Order: sequence, then C-alpha cells, then structure tokens
Amino acid sequence: MNKRVKIGIDLGATRVKIGVVNQAGRILCRREVDTPFNVKPAELVSSLVVNIGDILRQAGLKKGQIAGVGIGVPGPVDSEKGIVRYFPNIKGWENVALKSILERRLRLKVSLDNDVNAMTMAEHRFGAGKAAKNLVCLTLGTGVGGGIIINGGIYRGSTMCAGEIGHVPINEKGPRCNCRGIACIERYIGNRYVLNGARKIFGKSITLERLDRLAKSGNRKAAGIWADVGTKLGVALAGVVNLLNPDMIIVGGGVSKAGELILRPLRKEIKRHAMIDQARHVKVVRAKLGTDAGIIGASLLA
Amino acid sequence: MNKRVKIGIDLGATRVKIGVVNQAGRILCRREVDTPFNVKPAELVSSLVVNIGDILRQAGLKKGQIAGVGIGVPGPVDSEKGIVRYFPNIKGWENVALKSILERRLRLKVSLDNDVNAMTMAEHRFGAGKAAKNLVCLTLGTGVGGGIIINGGIYRGSTMCAGEIGHVPINEKGPRCNCRGIACIERYIGNRYVLNGARKIFGKSITLERLDRLAKSGNRKAAGIWADVGTKLGVALAGVVNLLNPDMIIVGGGVSKAGELILRPLRKEIKRHAMIDQARHVKVVRAKLGTDAGIIGASLLA
Repeated sequence: MNKRVKIGIDLGATRVKIGVVNQAGRILCRREVDTPFNVKPAELVSSLVVNIGDILRQAGLKKGQIAGVGIGVPGPVDSEKGIVRYFPNIKGWENVALKSILERRLRLKVSLDNDVNAMTMAEHRFGAGKAAKNLVCLTLGTGVGGGIIINGGIYRGSTMCAGEIGHVPINEKGPRCNCRGIACIERYIGNRYVLNGARKIFGKSITLERLDRLAKSGNRKAAGIWADVGTKLGVALAGVVNLLNPDMIIVGGGVSKAGELILRPLRKEIKRHAMIDQARHVKVVRAKLGTDAGIIGASLLA
Repeated sequence: MNKRVKIGIDLGATRVKIGVVNQAGRILCRREVDTPFNVKPAELVSSLVVNIGDILRQAGLKKGQIAGVGIGVPGPVDSEKGIVRYFPNIKGWENVALKSILERRLRLKVSLDNDVNAMTMAEHRFGAGKAAKNLVCLTLGTGVGGGIIINGGIYRGSTMCAGEIGHVPINEKGPRCNCRGIACIERYIGNRYVLNGARKIFGKSITLERLDRLAKSGNRKAAGIWADVGTKLGVALAGVVNLLNPDMIIVGGGVSKAGELILRPLRKEIKRHAMIDQARHVKVVRAKLGTDAGIIGASLLA
C-alpha cells in the first residue's frame, strides 16, 4: 500500500459510505454510517472528518499517502467550483461550497460530483462499461438517474445538468412530473409509480421486494409489471440510442435487481424500434459494481 | 488570396454546390449544378473533377493553394474511412470509397461527412452557434436531421450514426416510421406528414409555400399547423435538453422558414416542460447561414 490511494465518499440521503480505493478500483477499507435526518452541512463535514481520520488509522495510512478525496452527492452540483446546489432529499443545503469547506478541514484535495456521474465513471472504468467509448448509465430507483460518457470522459453538459434520462418524455400527453415535465419516463417507472400500478393490478399494496420475488417465481402479473417497465424504458432509450449512438447502456440501481425481467423487454424494444445501425451496435447490460460503484466512482473524481 | 483556402462540396440529392471557402468561412467563388437522377459514383466523380477544375480557374487558384476538399453527402458515411454507406435518395451507392476515389482523381486531400454534420459544424463555427460549447442543430425538411456539438467538436457516435433527432419518439404508441421506429418526431413533422395533416384541415391539397404564406398572412388554421409542429418538436427537444443540457438549439432547413411561427411554440414547450436549469440556459434560435451552410461546413471538414 505504498502506492498513493484515494478516498471515495458516497453521500446518500440515508447512508454515507467512505472507502479507501486503490488505482485498480479496489476498496481496501470502508466505513458506513447513517446520514442524520436533514443533516446540516457543518455537522456532515465534522462527521466526514472524524470518519476519514478513523478509516486512515484503520488502514494504517497517513494523509500524505492519499492522492485526494472524491465525493458523490445526491443532487445537482457545480463540479468545477465544488458547490452543492441543493439536495432534493436533504433540507438546508443550498449553494454549499462543500469542496472548499472539506479541503480546509481535511487539508486534502477534494473533488465533487453528483452520485450518478460518480457511478457512471466507476462502471466505465472498472465495471460493465470498460470496453465502451460512449455509453449511457442509468439508475433505476425512486428516481431514474443517468450519466453519459462521451469519447471516454464524463459529459456534464453546459451547466452541469446533463444526463437526466429520467426526464425524457415518452408521450405528448400524460402525467405531470415533479420536474414540470409531462410524461417523463420517471413518472412511469420510478419506484413509487411502479408500486402504485402494482397496487391496482393486485388489488392491494405490495412492496418492491415482494413484487420482485413474485415475478421471479413466475407470477405473470408481477412479471408483466417488470416487462412494462422495460418496454417503457425502451421507448425512451430507443430515442437516446438514435440520438447518441452509444456502445452501451448500463442499467443499475435498486430496481435493476429485477435483471432480465426488465432487460429482456428493454432490449427487445430497442432492437425492434431503434434505427438499425444504432440498434445493432448498442449493448444493454446490467451494472457490475453494485452499491460499491458510488465509493469507487467518487474516488475517480479525486 | 495568397492564404490557403479550401473547397467545400455540398452534395444534395437534387443539386451539387461547390465553393471555394476562406478561413473566415466566406465563399469566394461558387458553382452549382443539377445532380443527375440516380447519378452513379463514377459519373459524379468526373463531374466534380471537371467543376473543381473550372472553379479553380475562375478563382485564379492553383491546386497547391488548396488546403483540402471537404464533401458533405446526403446519407450515412464512415467519415474516418471516407466511405459512403448508402444514399436514401440516390440509387446505386453502397459502400463507395468516395474519399479515396476523389483523392486519386483530384490529387488533393478529401474529407467526407454527412450533410447535417457539415451544416452543424458551419453553424457552430461561423453561424448561429458561435458562442456555444454544446449544441444541437436540426434541419427540418422532408426528414428531420440533427447534428450534435459536444465540448466544441462534432459528436459522431460510436458507429458514426449519432444525431438522429428525427427519430426520437414522442409517443409510446403511434404511427410507424420508415426507420422501424414508432411515433418518431419525423413521422409527425416531416414535410410529407405536415402536408397530409394540412390537407385534412383545409379539405384539399396545399403546398408548403402556400401554407407558409397563409400562416404569415394570419390564417389561423395555417398558423395552427406550424404551432403544432413547434409544440411536437418541443416535446422531443425537452427530452434532448434534459439529457444533453446544451447551450443552444439551432433550427434550420426548409421548414424553418416558417421562423417564429414554429420557434415560438417550440420555445414555449421547452421553457415550460424541460427541467428548470436546462430550460433557463438553452437558447433556441434559427440557423444563420441558410443554404450556404452546406458548402461552408463541407470546407470545415477539410
């Protein structure tokens, strides 16, 4: 461990994961703590400083051996200036200069990006997307997030808001989305909406876990719900494939555990309805790094 | 004219335009000829060679003063190898190594790309998109074409098929498109489909020119048709804006002559339904270079 390693922090709305990551993308040492409800910036920073100190001691490392700290956060950021714009699910964070605050406290170089870009970078560098030059990476969960790799590097867009694949509309008319959009794909396949649909189909409330178990044990109603998720996502992605002509689409996030129950109809939709050259070329695969992608990706920011 | 200039060729299905273009993007000298019906590769090459010889004499230039020749063509190409894959509207072109054939005959360096990428490069370098780092350029006509500038350079995609914004679907269910897609935006706002719709509304056939004149003179039915084109395009572009977070969307091509009659509802749709940061940032403007964009853009390929 004489090579310089990095620290990756995956800041989630419910858990904070911290890892020491080497140049091969291996997590050498890790810690995980709850994110306090509506944690304030100062409180979070203090907790990070303490936990990083602990993890360094645990790993037998000195600060001088750390090349940098990367942090992936659950909301929009200005990654150049290192500012958190806001967190949709944590109150009291508005235009927080997290990078400079952390740098002052840690005396280490800190880099910042949103969690989906971090995950996308991890999957591209060490996961399912290693062979790809251009790819789109999705997370399916409460929301539908997306990151884009263009010509081998993360593409952030003109005001660092690119990648919002969850907010590609799939109908002219349809339900209004929280983002102001109409008929955004997230509005159909975000967890909440899937479960709402499932409740109507089963005539009672059902959890995602139960839905998943039912589908995997052959329940046709449950499998049909995942198939519908895959097909609807395929409509949005057929457009994305025609537009961006990527090598690969990587599907991750909690819902992606349904695996082939979603991916099969998704691939079918793209293969049938995207343009022939683009459809033939693109591979649709599951994310490989699982929940570690956040830590590993954050370390790549550093 | 002692500076080295370039030759730009805009090969269209109906006209071939050739120009000598300087480094400021000015066309110093030009020629335009009909594209013979279903012209064969050898025939086209011979015609290009003759016409380039003529234009050089006319401009008082020697071959040694030409930095290179760029050619924009109406169909998919492999721009790295300089191969025309096929032309949707000219028969008999399949995997034609146009670059190397032309280079042998002209003894000049030749570069090749599709016409929409050429136009996009011209608008980015010398036209409406000069200030933009990331932009999407559209042509509205028989088809709906698109080109993408990412981080200041043309983005071609993994198999050089990127930019097909005409084939972003705007509905899950809807009319089948020639590309195999369902409810592609082109299937609603390509010339033919606009005129089909107009025939139903007016109860008789109508030309695009007449439709345009009617709309501009205040005919509400006609204006409503353009407004519908703008709104539908806005649905597709809201998704593109959320995904790519560009600085600018440039709208060109024949139909764009309708100007604000399309652009106003298009902007409204994006401003209302794209995500707030992306919508606030993006500018939606008309192309500036008109039909010269093809020649100028082709010269930029060289």
